[in-house]
Amino acid sequence: MLRILVLHGPNLNALGTREPDIYGPATLDEIDAHLRSLGAELKVEVECLQSNHEGVLIDALYQARGRSDGVLLNPGGLTHSSVALRDAVLGAGVPVVEVHVSNPLARERFRHRSLLSGAALGVVEGFGSDSYLLALRGEAARLAHAARS
Amino acid sequence: MLRILVLHGPNLNALGTREPDIYGPATLDEIDAHLRSLGAELKVEVECLQSNHEGVLIDALYQARGRSDGVLLNPGGLTHSSVALRDAVLGAGVPVVEVHVSNPLARERFRHRSLLSGAALGVVEGFGSDSYLLALRGEAARLAHAARS
Amino acid sequence: MLRILVLHGPNLNALGTREPDIYGPATLDEIDAHLRSLGAELKVEVECLQSNHEGVLIDALYQARGRSDGVLLNPGGLTHSSVALRDAVLGAGVPVVEVHVSNPLARERFRHRSLLSGAALGVVEGFGSDSYLLALRGEAARLAHAARS
Amino acid sequence: MLRILVLHGPNLNALGTREPDIYGPATLDEIDAHLRSLGAELKVEVECLQSNHEGVLIDALYQARGRSDGVLLNPGGLTHSSVALRDAVLGAGVPVVEVHVSNPLARERFRHRSLLSGAALGVVEGFGSDSYLLALRGEAARLAHAARS
Amino acid sequence: MLRILVLHGPNLNALGTREPDIYGPATLDEIDAHLRSLGAELKVEVECLQSNHEGVLIDALYQARGRSDGVLLNPGGLTHSSVALRDAVLGAGVPVVEVHVSNPLARERFRHRSLLSGAALGVVEGFGSDSYLLALRGEAARLAHAARS
Amino acid sequence: MLRILVLHGPNLNALGTREPDIYGPATLDEIDAHLRSLGAELKVEVECLQSNHEGVLIDALYQARGRSDGVLLNPGGLTHSSVALRDAVLGAGVPVVEVHVSNPLARERFRHRSLLSGAALGVVEGFGSDSYLLALRGEAARLAHAARS
Amino acid sequence: MLRILVLHGPNLNALGTREPDIYGPATLDEIDAHLRSLGAELKVEVECLQSNHEGVLIDALYQARGRSDGVLLNPGGLTHSSVALRDAVLGAGVPVVEVHVSNPLARERFRHRSLLSGAALGVVEGFGSDSYLLALRGEAARLAHAARS
Amino acid sequence: MLRILVLHGPNLNALGTREPDIYGPATLDEIDAHLRSLGAELKVEVECLQSNHEGVLIDALYQARGRSDGVLLNPGGLTHSSVALRDAVLGAGVPVVEVHVSNPLARERFRHRSLLSGAALGVVEGFGSDSYLLALRGEAARLAHAARS
Amino acid sequence: MLRILVLHGPNLNALGTREPDIYGPATLDEIDAHLRSLGAELKVEVECLQSNHEGVLIDALYQARGRSDGVLLNPGGLTHSSVALRDAVLGAGVPVVEVHVSNPLARERFRHRSLLSGAALGVVEGFGSDSYLLALRGEAARLAHAARS
Amino acid sequence: MLRILVLHGPNLNALGTREPDIYGPATLDEIDAHLRSLGAELKVEVECLQSNHEGVLIDALYQARGRSDGVLLNPGGLTHSSVALRDAVLGAGVPVVEVHVSNPLARERFRHRSLLSGAALGVVEGFGSDSYLLALRGEAARLAHAARS
Amino acid sequence: MLRILVLHGPNLNALGTREPDIYGPATLDEIDAHLRSLGAELKVEVECLQSNHEGVLIDALYQARGRSDGVLLNPGGLTHSSVALRDAVLGAGVPVVEVHVSNPLARERFRHRSLLSGAALGVVEGFGSDSYLLALRGEAARLAHAARS
Amino acid sequence: MLRILVLHGPNLNALGTREPDIYGPATLDEIDAHLRSLGAELKVEVECLQSNHEGVLIDALYQARGRSDGVLLNPGGLTHSSVALRDAVLGAGVPVVEVHVSNPLARERFRHRSLLSGAALGVVEGFGSDSYLLALRGEAARLAHAARS
Repeated sequence: MLRILVLHGPNLNALGTREPDIYGPATLDEIDAHLRSLGAELKVEVECLQSNHEGVLIDALYQARGRSDGVLLNPGGLTHSSVALRDAVLGAGVPVVEVHVSNPLARERFRHRSLLSGAALGVVEGFGSDSYLLALRGEAARLAHAARS
Repeated sequence: MLRILVLHGPNLNALGTREPDIYGPATLDEIDAHLRSLGAELKVEVECLQSNHEGVLIDALYQARGRSDGVLLNPGGLTHSSVALRDAVLGAGVPVVEVHVSNPLARERFRHRSLLSGAALGVVEGFGSDSYLLALRGEAARLAHAARS
Repeated sequence: MLRILVLHGPNLNALGTREPDIYGPATLDEIDAHLRSLGAELKVEVECLQSNHEGVLIDALYQARGRSDGVLLNPGGLTHSSVALRDAVLGAGVPVVEVHVSNPLARERFRHRSLLSGAALGVVEGFGSDSYLLALRGEAARLAHAARS
Repeated sequence: MLRILVLHGPNLNALGTREPDIYGPATLDEIDAHLRSLGAELKVEVECLQSNHEGVLIDALYQARGRSDGVLLNPGGLTHSSVALRDAVLGAGVPVVEVHVSNPLARERFRHRSLLSGAALGVVEGFGSDSYLLALRGEAARLAHAARS
Repeated sequence: MLRILVLHGPNLNALGTREPDIYGPATLDEIDAHLRSLGAELKVEVECLQSNHEGVLIDALYQARGRSDGVLLNPGGLTHSSVALRDAVLGAGVPVVEVHVSNPLARERFRHRSLLSGAALGVVEGFGSDSYLLALRGEAARLAHAARS
Repeated sequence: MLRILVLHGPNLNALGTREPDIYGPATLDEIDAHLRSLGAELKVEVECLQSNHEGVLIDALYQARGRSDGVLLNPGGLTHSSVALRDAVLGAGVPVVEVHVSNPLARERFRHRSLLSGAALGVVEGFGSDSYLLALRGEAARLAHAARS
Repeated sequence: MLRILVLHGPNLNALGTREPDIYGPATLDEIDAHLRSLGAELKVEVECLQSNHEGVLIDALYQARGRSDGVLLNPGGLTHSSVALRDAVLGAGVPVVEVHVSNPLARERFRHRSLLSGAALGVVEGFGSDSYLLALRGEAARLAHAARS
Repeated sequence: MLRILVLHGPNLNALGTREPDIYGPATLDEIDAHLRSLGAELKVEVECLQSNHEGVLIDALYQARGRSDGVLLNPGGLTHSSVALRDAVLGAGVPVVEVHVSNPLARERFRHRSLLSGAALGVVEGFGSDSYLLALRGEAARLAHAARS
Repeated sequence: MLRILVLHGPNLNALGTREPDIYGPATLDEIDAHLRSLGAELKVEVECLQSNHEGVLIDALYQARGRSDGVLLNPGGLTHSSVALRDAVLGAGVPVVEVHVSNPLARERFRHRSLLSGAALGVVEGFGSDSYLLALRGEAARLAHAARS
Repeated sequence: MLRILVLHGPNLNALGTREPDIYGPATLDEIDAHLRSLGAELKVEVECLQSNHEGVLIDALYQARGRSDGVLLNPGGLTHSSVALRDAVLGAGVPVVEVHVSNPLARERFRHRSLLSGAALGVVEGFGSDSYLLALRGEAARLAHAARS
Repeated sequence: MLRILVLHGPNLNALGTREPDIYGPATLDEIDAHLRSLGAELKVEVECLQSNHEGVLIDALYQARGRSDGVLLNPGGLTHSSVALRDAVLGAGVPVVEVHVSNPLARERFRHRSLLSGAALGVVEGFGSDSYLLALRGEAARLAHAARS
Repeated sequence: MLRILVLHGPNLNALGTREPDIYGPATLDEIDAHLRSLGAELKVEVECLQSNHEGVLIDALYQARGRSDGVLLNPGGLTHSSVALRDAVLGAGVPVVEVHVSNPLARERFRHRSLLSGAALGVVEGFGSDSYLLALRGEAARLAHAARS
């Protein structure tokens, strides 16, 4: 059975309570429940972790080596500035899909592109909490396909 | 029954024949067949069009008004330069999801962000031809949800 | 009698149906009718063409040589990106006035200046559909003055 | 009867005497006379002021509140640098149309866009001294239309 | 007894009448009265001057030498462009505190930092008309402290 | 009684021991004591926390929801780089005033503006440890005023 | 016998009639005749096509697959902006030599380098209509050499 | 006899009292006296004016037409920002030499080049108050030479 | 006896397991052992610490005051983004040498220079794990020399 | 008989020995022999010089005045940085064609355009050692044509 | 008696023969003769050297230590690119005045400021060959003044 | 026995006599003696060359092929501007270590990174004349290691 680790970065603890027009009404607990439920359907074991600490996320990526088959990572605001997180995505060697609930480019707040996207194998953004579900489907299909070949 | 128009932009006629390591082995006809098949499962009628002409894509976006409930758009290289296509996405008023088979940021070829992404409601990229299927799921769920509320 | 060609670029087919607070309530047909009516008053024959295809606009500029005394051009979003259209304005040798119904700078969406403006002999922008009428007056006066001298 | 204030900024005192190929042969007095004459035709009272002092222009914009229905402003070189003049256009609350006798973009001297244009309701440039007359027509129509609605 | 000169730059004559959500409801006369009242409490003589003329502000800074112990300066839009005002702050040798009623960075209108801030000894911004009062307290404490040491 | 949380970011543990000409002779403990003392005078309960960990500061901003009425935040060097901290200021929904003991622009070390300032309601900088006291007064007045209206 | 397709982009229909000092006196028909004549000498079949439509040029590049051994492409103004044309040069897999009759860098009109040059195998520019002849020689030698090895 | 107007811009009233290591010990009155004395030797009538007002300097440049044969202009900080002053140098048509007492580039405070230098016929900088004397010699020689030819 | 603290930043826990062509085959434990061994030879006590948390590194720099004579710091990806770490290098007052096992510039991944290098007294990079040994020699010589003088 | 000087700049002594996939297998001596042989066919006397010294190349350009009818210049890496060489191309007054064996833009190593190209009358690049032969043909035709007219 | 070395950089050997409208009709020999003649009048021994080699100029600057009291340096195009020449001006420790016969900023060819100016004590430019004479006067006065004090 | 060539670039002849606080008190002769002495200890033959001429350095790099096993290169100011020197480092194929006696980034004089560093295999900077000794150790170890494997 595949195992996928879901990592929520800084400020995602506030999902559902902060600017619901942009980020949607679902709380992080509800999103995690949906992910586990879809995981059960797809025969994927889903583990979830949220932290506001860049270092905790980096540690988690390395601990995923050998324990998880893939990672869904919503880096929050770290997507614009953390070279260290990008290096960890490349260094840990576990396939990572980047997820954003809102379309970060649509907000047009920052001119810099995501540093992470170049290191991730895929990106899903703009579908609210459905972004996570689509990303889980996409990564599970990728991993299943890789396992077969 | 929902109707979704799939628009493939310049150079996507070459899918499956050009750099298969980056873009995957599926041809455009195979991708369209997969989309229609998934559409049938999701109760969505899928119509497909490819053109290397920016103007044809803009015309198609306006013709979709009143005929299609949503659009999947893979703008190809126009994503970096076409303000006119962006204006059409905003002007036609039909919800658009942007799709890329490879991760365009991962290729790191251009420093400029997609002009289109800010106008699209969601983006899926990097999953090969699965990007289209995930985007179809995401848009169908969005449209179904909007129809209910 | 003077002959002036009015060229409407991409997305202007949607005038009157798209963001009326910014672009005004007049449709393209109504604007064309106003232009013909003012043309009659000023003794100017007015011909109108809209296209979402850059190539059609370039072709039209060259076909205007020897047939039209001047051109009113609303390039829409091509104003920011089309070097080819700029070259055609310079190459066709017919005097061109650039028109925008909204003030493109006021929208502050793009930092780059219009590429076309440097090639046009004059610019009118920000007066809604009146921009076309003022531009027609301005160009007619210019052409009449040039014809006299 | 409508009242429109015409403000000429730095160096416009030299019109007619400086680079006539670019700026045209008309002196400022002749332009003011043409504006008053067209104003009489359009039932608009026209008042004119030239100053090389940014502060005088800002003071005049505030004094126009309650006294003038609109302003035609040729900011000259201040268009590229004066945030204070821009703030005054926004702060005084009197509708302003920006005018340039030559096409400032055509001269391609500066890469920065006009700071003022984003605050003005319309722009007319490139028609020589006719730019003022077109702008007067445009603003008068705007004000008359606003008065009716 | 300490003497502090309060200099209000361009457009601040419009305080209380222009965009009260951003700039607050207090007029400049009311702000000056509050400053004099707090000055009396702090044993500081407060003198106030507003001008839309950069040159008048520079002259005032030099005239403050020997007459005032410190200056509160709200440069308005000159903060973004006036190297001459910056030079005057450095050249006059009177300690200057920069004040803004709204948070100029929050408005995010301009990408350039304040030129003045590097020359001022302190900055207070974003507290509406209270910005002036906090700046007066801060500067008075600084001057009193310097007088003692 | 109002409650205000004072957050000191990275390197502020070294206040009083590091470059006293720039940062002043007061240690962090002395500053906290002054803040509590002024808080008592203003009827504000003051709580203080210092951390060199970005994540701890973000956690503290969210824990302040419902516990504190406002926050004074000296982000130290994070002001130039932490999008995540900025998002937390916006996401926690507690009013934040940004404080710097030295004038960060005066040091002219970095060309990038503070990322935080756009999210803070006010900024006080350059008054040494008095910056904190002025900020406390400013925020207390803001909160008291909001409580009344 | 080798077959080479010559593609002339936007505005090249005007060769010989537009700014002859810069672009030379030869018309497009004369250039095509010279190319066919040199082709006969070099045992190369030369086919020529001009279009002002980016999409037509992209279509022609794909249709050249299997039909032509090489392409001479004068992209005109598209050289500065068309990512789609660049992708087609890479995607069609037919060797392309870029040609310009004037030296585009010498004109110094744009600061951006040609997007196409990085995708072309060679570039000839600045020799007037001789640029085409030199490019034909260069490409024919390349193709003959590749055929031998 | 030649007549040369010396214009001193903002903050030059402080010469001799402000940062004497950089700007030298001579006051403006002393510099003017030296200029008049050297003028007498060179048979040049020297007139001097200082103002902190950009508008006064622009007015003076236009008033110099017909009255002065040349101008020495020390624009102070306006050299970096005043497009209007540059336009006046070009518009007044009187030959202008730009003078700086310190080497403005050596101070390396601003990255932008002088806007004025491109409009001036010569520049002398870095020689303290001798800069003015060298510039007077240079301009007098130029004018005498032009008068002869 | 001298005491030197070796700080390894984010992702260096993966040394020896990640891209060995770039970073070399030695694990962090092996590097630490080599450092201690060379330390014994040079009469330097070597203490080692790795963390993926920026805050832990900053804390360690302050704790080194009074305990260590110098620091070897490999900041990993923080070298490009952490102003806070730079401030800690300056604030802690312990001499720091920056170390990189690969040549970070050779990878040419980022255009921005190291923020840290300006604060470090020396830099060694590109020699694989030997970079640490050379840096230890260099710092020990520096400290020994400073102790003698 | 025409005389053409071939100047090879820095590092071209290594041709044939350095990265033959990019620069081709021909050594400089072989290229010079090919050039002389083609020269004989075209009735052009060819003289060749290589130097790694910018100054030697500049001297050679001036010595070519009166001795050579044209110059082929491969500036190597100086193309990106040498303003002095560009000035010499303009100053010596001998027609120069710029040559590169590889396509320098294709290598995409530097973002800056060639400084020289704007001064050269033509450019040939990307054809390996054939670039020289094409350039010799192009320049000879130019010179012969100029001699006739 | 003072000794001043005059260094002419690349391309100045062509003075008098190259673009005389911009650079003046005087040849380098004539300029050197004028400098020696003025030197005799000012009791300064003048030595002159021209080279197109950056290295020769740097060598000359070091050889001037102990032999010359000052240097006049016209760096030609090296002013825009040679960090090494700038370092030599700073390193040789002989006072240097930078000279340009035309106003390099007026040509507006390059956006980058002179690298040298920040290292030179003064700059004279734009007076044709008189630039050298004014610079000689300025430097002689400086040196004489320094010798007295 | 290994042979290493030490190349000192422009201005390094002045070591020990120029800004000793930054560059240290050792002269170039003393540094060369230390290098030879350490070389004897490490069984490495050390040859040293200094030149202010870029071309001499490039020539030396090519002459090192087959004669030297490695190069230590202190490029001085050429590190910021010489593409030709970088190409020579890549083209000569001899391993190069870049050395700087001061920390060039610490001086923060230029914003551009070293062009050379990307071509060098390692960099040592900031240790005064010890930088050379550390670099010699590092390169000798590298070469010995390569010889063994």
